[in-house]
Amino acid sequence: MTVNYRTPTAEDLLPVAGVRLGTACAGIRKPGRRDLTLIELAAGSRVAGVFTANRYCAAPVLLSREHLLSGAIRALVINTGVANAGTGEAGMTAARQTCEAVAAALGITSTQVLPFSTGVIMEPLPVEPIIAALPDCRADLAGDHWFAAAHAIMTTDTVAKAASRRVRVGGRDVVVTGMAKGAGMIKPNMATMLGFVATDAAISQALLERLLKDAADASFNCITVDGDTSTNDSFLLIASGAAGNAEIVDPACSDYVALSAAVMTVARELAQAIVRDGEGATKFIAIEIGGGASSQECKAVGYAIAHSPLVKTAFFASDPNLGRILAAIGNAGITDLDVDRVRLWLGSGGSEVLVAENGGRAEGYREDDGARVMAQAEIAVRVDLGRGDSRAQVWTCDLSYEYVKINADYRS
Amino acid sequence: MTVNYRTPTAEDLLPVAGVRLGTACAGIRKPGRRDLTLIELAAGSRVAGVFTANRYCAAPVLLSREHLLSGAIRALVINTGVANAGTGEAGMTAARQTCEAVAAALGITSTQVLPFSTGVIMEPLPVEPIIAALPDCRADLAGDHWFAAAHAIMTTDTVAKAASRRVRVGGRDVVVTGMAKGAGMIKPNMATMLGFVATDAAISQALLERLLKDAADASFNCITVDGDTSTNDSFLLIASGAAGNAEIVDPACSDYVALSAAVMTVARELAQAIVRDGEGATKFIAIEIGGGASSQECKAVGYAIAHSPLVKTAFFASDPNLGRILAAIGNAGITDLDVDRVRLWLGSGGSEVLVAENGGRAEGYREDDGARVMAQAEIAVRVDLGRGDSRAQVWTCDLSYEYVKINADYRS
Repeated sequence: MTVNYRTPTAEDLLPVAGVRLGTACAGIRKPGRRDLTLIELAAGSRVAGVFTANRYCAAPVLLSREHLLSGAIRALVINTGVANAGTGEAGMTAARQTCEAVAAALGITSTQVLPFSTGVIMEPLPVEPIIAALPDCRADLAGDHWFAAAHAIMTTDTVAKAASRRVRVGGRDVVVTGMAKGAGMIKPNMATMLGFVATDAAISQALLERLLKDAADASFNCITVDGDTSTNDSFLLIASGAAGNAEIVDPACSDYVALSAAVMTVARELAQAIVRDGEGATKFIAIEIGGGASSQECKAVGYAIAHSPLVKTAFFASDPNLGRILAAIGNAGITDLDVDRVRLWLGSGGSEVLVAENGGRAEGYREDDGARVMAQAEIAVRVDLGRGDSRAQVWTCDLSYEYVKINADYRS
Repeated sequence: MTVNYRTPTAEDLLPVAGVRLGTACAGIRKPGRRDLTLIELAAGSRVAGVFTANRYCAAPVLLSREHLLSGAIRALVINTGVANAGTGEAGMTAARQTCEAVAAALGITSTQVLPFSTGVIMEPLPVEPIIAALPDCRADLAGDHWFAAAHAIMTTDTVAKAASRRVRVGGRDVVVTGMAKGAGMIKPNMATMLGFVATDAAISQALLERLLKDAADASFNCITVDGDTSTNDSFLLIASGAAGNAEIVDPACSDYVALSAAVMTVARELAQAIVRDGEGATKFIAIEIGGGASSQECKAVGYAIAHSPLVKTAFFASDPNLGRILAAIGNAGITDLDVDRVRLWLGSGGSEVLVAENGGRAEGYREDDGARVMAQAEIAVRVDLGRGDSRAQVWTCDLSYEYVKINADYRS
């Protein structure tokens, strides 16, 4: 079940000039399922990427980092089913072989290929079926295959996640289209499970890197489902330059502002889609922390709330057992937090309810008001720490029976 | 359901000379339930305590800390049902009034009373029913009421937790008896939910404090159910001195060693009992991390494994999806961890299985071996980080449907 999210139709997903996508069935874990995706980029495309901070990061993450250094990326290959993480030297060999096969198929060099994997950790990546399915992928390459690709990269996702925007840049119509996957093991640290956003705008490599980091921080780095940072988190931003606009080189120019806004919107939509499709999710919770001495401490409080199983089960039950939120705030590691200055609200807009202040329950708080907000499918939580001007946001979902069921059943 | 734990019988719990306990029904949340406990200590008793690091710590925690400074503690009063945390100034007033009423009932001063509360956070403590029930508590005071008291302090616990040992100290038979409560919101940081251990041995205040900290570190500070540090965690060690042994003042003497071993055993038994009765627990998991550069980083790895919902649900499902453990190790915040040197074993003694080494799955590992260990009710996880000589241990339980059910239903 997802919380207020519906995959766009194939027609909603605008092709990005210079970017073609193809999918095929490699039979990596499930026969007959499209589990392999090839993305071909026009010559001259620029690519920037951020990756997981997990020390057991996957072989494809290590190799993608390495290949990005040499630049001139022309292809991405993505398999689902097996993560190729916790696979040691054999995993590196498998990832290299995959890149070599893609390079041979497209007439490029293997360092121009970025590999991505998602699925079960510590299982060997079956390279032969992947190589065998590459001709089908290549034959399927087309600019309007984002919809199929968004499906082909899924694991425990119940819906495909993709978004598209058109924006005016340098007198031209420019497109930003992206897709992402992820539903569990979601607490990105640098980037999320797998996210790919492409534009046909021309933009300098330096600005592309900056835009990537800003977009990651305002989207995938704000979400958590279960607090587990994956071994395979990767977020890639691609600029093919095919739109023909004058290359954007100045972060203050209106073109950058317009493109940046479109990329941010797409990235945020994808990140929120991951939470809305979080394993077992029945509620979408937007947590906003203000009044902090630093944005880091605001984020720490946001994650302390978002990761507390007791808070998450209370959301699931629609139970305004809101003392659990206070306990989570008190656990966020701010050793000099003065709880007498902390204020907590539930709900948003006109229906916002002040729950706690002066170290305890607010005078005017009535449990009926809390219960009314908790019953909604989308719940806003706002905290003012009363010690500064910094802020941060975190998006998460509740913890339901279904989360346990999915993760107790997955793989078996 | 508990994992291999049975409450000792009333007869198993040895009275501690100088310590009397009484319980009564105050009707704080549930009418007819014994929810109030009074512990009276003989004059000259020494008391040491450690408390939660949660910034939203409860009013009774603040007051207990304050009263411990003045020394000469003569009574403890414990209520269940309401935590008196997140209750601001009104909460402090309620805790003070409770202490004053206890002092009046026993003919002592209110600073000689330590108050403790456990239950729902952010609800006001009903003082009048507590004061009204104090005469019943006093009338019930007896040295052999540990069994009743261990039941009276429970919240979501399904079983009462208590333990007793007799040990030879200074030529005398000395008793160590303790009780604890806790099943959810368990990730003690300094101490656990509520733990009280008493001995009739005579020991200096300085050594009592040292023993308390050592015992907490080797017991309650090694456990986690759900990673939530409670607002009310308190662990108290009481020495009445009534056994008549020569006061222990030297940490190197055999008397200290003997008493210390008995206190450690009781504290560890109580701490493990909390995990065995963890909300929804079906498995008891003992995690041992060795080869670390510091015990802190070992503890961090242990908790990263113990807190991962994905690892916990895999234990629940008896599914050897052990890559999830690697992902958790990689997430523990050791930025220079060399995963090629990390080794992971499952099981203990002769049936230990090497699961991972050299950055991936061990050559000889067979999934059948992993499945065999995962099917057991008690599972040992051992990690060697391959970077030093430090070690740490963490005890936890799995994450089941029942955990969600308990915490979605509790209170409503």
